[in-house]
Amino acid sequence: MLMINALQDQQTELLDAINSPADLRRLKPEQLTQLTGEIRTKIIQTVANTGGHLAPSLGVVELTIALHYVFDTPHDKLIWDVGHQSYAHKLLTGRRDKFHTLRQYKGISGFPKRSESEYDVVEAGHSSTSISYGLGIAAAKDLKKDNNRVIAVIGDGSMTAGLAFEGLNHAGDLDKDLIVILNDNEMSISPNVGAMSSFLSRKLTGKTMSGLRKHVEERLKSLSAVGENILNVLRKSEESLKGFFTPGMLFEALKFEYIGPIPGHQLDSLIETLQNVRDNRHGPVLIHVITTKGKGYAPSEHNPGDYHGVGPFTIANGKPLPSIGNISYTKVFGSTLCKLARENDRVTAITAAMPAGTGLTSFSQQFPDRFFDVGIAEQHAVTFAAGLAMEGMRPVVAIYSSFMQRALDQIIHDVCLPDLPVTLALDRGGVVGDDGPTHHGVFDLSFLRFIPNLVLMAPKDENELQHMLNTAVYHNGPTAIRYPRGSGEGVELDKDLLRLPIGRGELLREGRDVLLLPVGNRVYPALAAADGLKKLGIDAAVINPRFIKPLDNELICEWAEKTGRVVTIEDNVKKGGFGSAVLQLLCEVHLKVPVRLLGYGNTFIEHGPQQILWKNHGLDVSGIIKGTLEVMKQ
Amino acid sequence: MLMINALQDQQTELLDAINSPADLRRLKPEQLTQLTGEIRTKIIQTVANTGGHLAPSLGVVELTIALHYVFDTPHDKLIWDVGHQSYAHKLLTGRRDKFHTLRQYKGISGFPKRSESEYDVVEAGHSSTSISYGLGIAAAKDLKKDNNRVIAVIGDGSMTAGLAFEGLNHAGDLDKDLIVILNDNEMSISPNVGAMSSFLSRKLTGKTMSGLRKHVEERLKSLSAVGENILNVLRKSEESLKGFFTPGMLFEALKFEYIGPIPGHQLDSLIETLQNVRDNRHGPVLIHVITTKGKGYAPSEHNPGDYHGVGPFTIANGKPLPSIGNISYTKVFGSTLCKLARENDRVTAITAAMPAGTGLTSFSQQFPDRFFDVGIAEQHAVTFAAGLAMEGMRPVVAIYSSFMQRALDQIIHDVCLPDLPVTLALDRGGVVGDDGPTHHGVFDLSFLRFIPNLVLMAPKDENELQHMLNTAVYHNGPTAIRYPRGSGEGVELDKDLLRLPIGRGELLREGRDVLLLPVGNRVYPALAAADGLKKLGIDAAVINPRFIKPLDNELICEWAEKTGRVVTIEDNVKKGGFGSAVLQLLCEVHLKVPVRLLGYGNTFIEHGPQQILWKNHGLDVSGIIKGTLEVMKQ
Repeated sequence: MLMINALQDQQTELLDAINSPADLRRLKPEQLTQLTGEIRTKIIQTVANTGGHLAPSLGVVELTIALHYVFDTPHDKLIWDVGHQSYAHKLLTGRRDKFHTLRQYKGISGFPKRSESEYDVVEAGHSSTSISYGLGIAAAKDLKKDNNRVIAVIGDGSMTAGLAFEGLNHAGDLDKDLIVILNDNEMSISPNVGAMSSFLSRKLTGKTMSGLRKHVEERLKSLSAVGENILNVLRKSEESLKGFFTPGMLFEALKFEYIGPIPGHQLDSLIETLQNVRDNRHGPVLIHVITTKGKGYAPSEHNPGDYHGVGPFTIANGKPLPSIGNISYTKVFGSTLCKLARENDRVTAITAAMPAGTGLTSFSQQFPDRFFDVGIAEQHAVTFAAGLAMEGMRPVVAIYSSFMQRALDQIIHDVCLPDLPVTLALDRGGVVGDDGPTHHGVFDLSFLRFIPNLVLMAPKDENELQHMLNTAVYHNGPTAIRYPRGSGEGVELDKDLLRLPIGRGELLREGRDVLLLPVGNRVYPALAAADGLKKLGIDAAVINPRFIKPLDNELICEWAEKTGRVVTIEDNVKKGGFGSAVLQLLCEVHLKVPVRLLGYGNTFIEHGPQQILWKNHGLDVSGIIKGTLEVMKQ
Repeated sequence: MLMINALQDQQTELLDAINSPADLRRLKPEQLTQLTGEIRTKIIQTVANTGGHLAPSLGVVELTIALHYVFDTPHDKLIWDVGHQSYAHKLLTGRRDKFHTLRQYKGISGFPKRSESEYDVVEAGHSSTSISYGLGIAAAKDLKKDNNRVIAVIGDGSMTAGLAFEGLNHAGDLDKDLIVILNDNEMSISPNVGAMSSFLSRKLTGKTMSGLRKHVEERLKSLSAVGENILNVLRKSEESLKGFFTPGMLFEALKFEYIGPIPGHQLDSLIETLQNVRDNRHGPVLIHVITTKGKGYAPSEHNPGDYHGVGPFTIANGKPLPSIGNISYTKVFGSTLCKLARENDRVTAITAAMPAGTGLTSFSQQFPDRFFDVGIAEQHAVTFAAGLAMEGMRPVVAIYSSFMQRALDQIIHDVCLPDLPVTLALDRGGVVGDDGPTHHGVFDLSFLRFIPNLVLMAPKDENELQHMLNTAVYHNGPTAIRYPRGSGEGVELDKDLLRLPIGRGELLREGRDVLLLPVGNRVYPALAAADGLKKLGIDAAVINPRFIKPLDNELICEWAEKTGRVVTIEDNVKKGGFGSAVLQLLCEVHLKVPVRLLGYGNTFIEHGPQQILWKNHGLDVSGIIKGTLEVMKQ
């Protein structure tokens, strides 16, 4: 492990000479160990400044070197699942000089990105896509009679997702040349859950073992040549029995050739194994590599969960730089849900492998029986919640907005069609900042708004979030709350939780000239814009609609009519979003007033600080003023 | 097997006395076999009139009787996955007298439906939800200290879906009382695909066997007490080896207790097994039951795929009643794709377990190398297609509109973000008729329209469908085509395929008073409505927009301005759909004309013939006339 104090003095002479994997391949095997140290130094030094996915990338330094050393990238296709472990890959594929711009505005992405490099095969950010992508590429290569290799690197956490299973199942059937590398660190972002996980790690329960033992004994007994002595050996030794039931067996049953487990930080054995597979194996092969998440930096190695994704930190002690800002929405969500659970024992919480990210750590400790981490399995999270709701529970499913895209059908078919009281808590609604287009939650208002029975709301601040959560949990039907990433507005939190009337907004400011209709985190900027407009002689009314569905038709129409002009503002795409709802309302009541929609257009949005993105898309105070001035001319 | 000729004379005296499972439980075990015959008679006679899911329901008659006989439904919760096998369940749970109304307008649903009966635990229609639902119910029961049992019946085909795997994985981890019944008929709708499937059926390949053999040998060798004679026995006998690798092993590894396989048409052993599990087992249990799809009716037993879902047929020979109607959209899609594939060897086709339903049977026969049935795995289907597209293929993914809801994230993140030339073919867009709310494809325009880079189109007739498919396959980016269930318009099919200019609509009729903007299958009714309006003195222009995204802004605005009034008509929800796009366009260009949106409101839509549903929702000719007359008053 790198000594922390020594880190500052590390040279990166080998790395500095690598401009592409071709340069790497010119190194002698014995030089590679030095290179691992140089890469780790570069990653730690950079991420300490920029923040980023530290622990995943530190865990695969040797694997990354070995893969580019052995395979002929970019002709051979190397796919990083999720992609948050791709920093060493970026350093080795021509992006060393730009690496300090990691996740910075206009800098390189924190994930593989096709437009950034020919070595980035797929767009990544969401988990568990690599096997499906890789199989498609392998099938196409087969049709084209190409013989380049396709390698998908996937973490054991990502294996819990249904998509990964669907891909494995089809891969075993198709029998194309596909190398899957299972990067097994016994972690997803938090420690893994799920039966598969304990199977992979061979932490089999007594119950499983006794089922398996019975199975083996019966089989052996049926062979005439087996004597009691063998059965006794089996009975005595749990270890001998475990040998029958390895991860290998599972993957072999799915028609993969299984190789491993291989120690993931020993370059020589990694390289030898990969060379062997490259030269001698065809069809679907799975190489099981054991790695340590956060490897090579004491703080992240000891506490990989906390260093999965980090903000800037002090290298010497690993401590995060003091963060400025108010309490986060995430934190208020978590503490409010604890409060609700104390009052009502039917309140349950579900996360898809993100207990900390969604603010549920404290809930999981206080109410372990009512807390369910289902693994990276957003579809199941929602349908499982539907089952809980059928029996009178009040489940709250907390999933980041962009990951909730995985569960659309479950929301429609499994929750809203039977009209069940499930609450969907969509954290990271709107642009999320440095993680970029794969993580921006800018579609949720559009993909939730059309679903019958669903009540959809967005709080203007953290205080309203707690009231909305209380409202949702006691509503007799499905609800969704979307709230932004990051700090709240710094407002005081009411002690008593309110139940907000469904479908009623609040008039925040009267005005004669124009009605501003901002959603969620755009309410305060709209109020500031109203102040700015006042100075320009424009008297703007401001309504916080609270509910995107159902809309407060009465209040909105009243003030649209009074003012004669409307501006809608949302941290969401314009197509199908809140503004679209307002247009439909005004059309239905035959109110012909000029309307200006502010929101995102029809492009994916780059990474960068939220403030810059809002500004670029006309959603900050000055953008709202500008949009309003334009509608005033109509 | 029932004799076909005898069927007409069958009495249903036992069935006629069963008004609830309580009545069933009063029967003696020896009477139950007679009951199976009576139920099959009733199902066959009814479905011969109404159409429906014949083969799945015939396959589980014994299982259904045994489950209701042994378990205390409705207190014990019985969940039917997908639900297309629930006819015997419906007959035994108080719906015998209404059974002739199966799938008829205002009659009982073809799927379990919570509002229909307290015995219908979940809303069903989409596959693979039962384990997740069941686990949620079981977890809630545990929290409430209830001790009723929860039973999920899932087919082996449904097991290929990621959601089922996510549920199994979590169930093994949670260790709640959950009984999963694997209804294994080696079929989904078509014969199954996937490695899991051959594992379940023990049709292991030589390659898998040799991997497994090596594995067992090495393990046994490491036990000191094992002699060469045992190894020789193992080596000689593939059967002995197979015994080690049964489905049981797989589920035991996932921490389920495995029981089976049980013959699924022997009532006594079914009942005994279920009683034993009910009384003696806890935690997650999987009972593997082998059934014959279509059991008990010669035509469906011999050809279960064709009798999965059927229209009305003649009982004596199983032949479908002559269908009236033009060639279907599905068929034109399939034949056009074959034509394209003949011209261009990069054209590939992907289905998710629906080769016949999506019209790809002929393609699969003509181009087996370029045809991929991925199983019930919509997520993987889309990401796999993305991989094919990366290597220059032109994949076309054919999935029913309502099932495409499963793949939203893959469409956004895996296809449209990297801007790949994948074509999504959404059959069954709009209301589908008798299958009802779970199958209506009335959300697709809304959940696809907001996605950057995606081109979205809908053909007015089957001739335009072929041109659109040709256009899509040669477009350098993602495209989606949605087209309706059922017959086309009977128009002639052009011999030469055109490439339609992206984002350009066609003016079908000039007019001075109002602009009708119908999408897809609403174009011809709108033309007829224009004729009707003419008689009322109203001169309507009609534009077929062809593209929902990008819109033909110029053409639409030109005629909206000329006529001064607009009516949009879509077989889709109004929220976020095509009308919403038109409203946004008119708003952006400051064109203040009265607009009327015709489409579905904010409720799920019942089952019934398409014509009735269109009429009820104002989307038929008279509804369009009515809507137009209203907008004329503005």
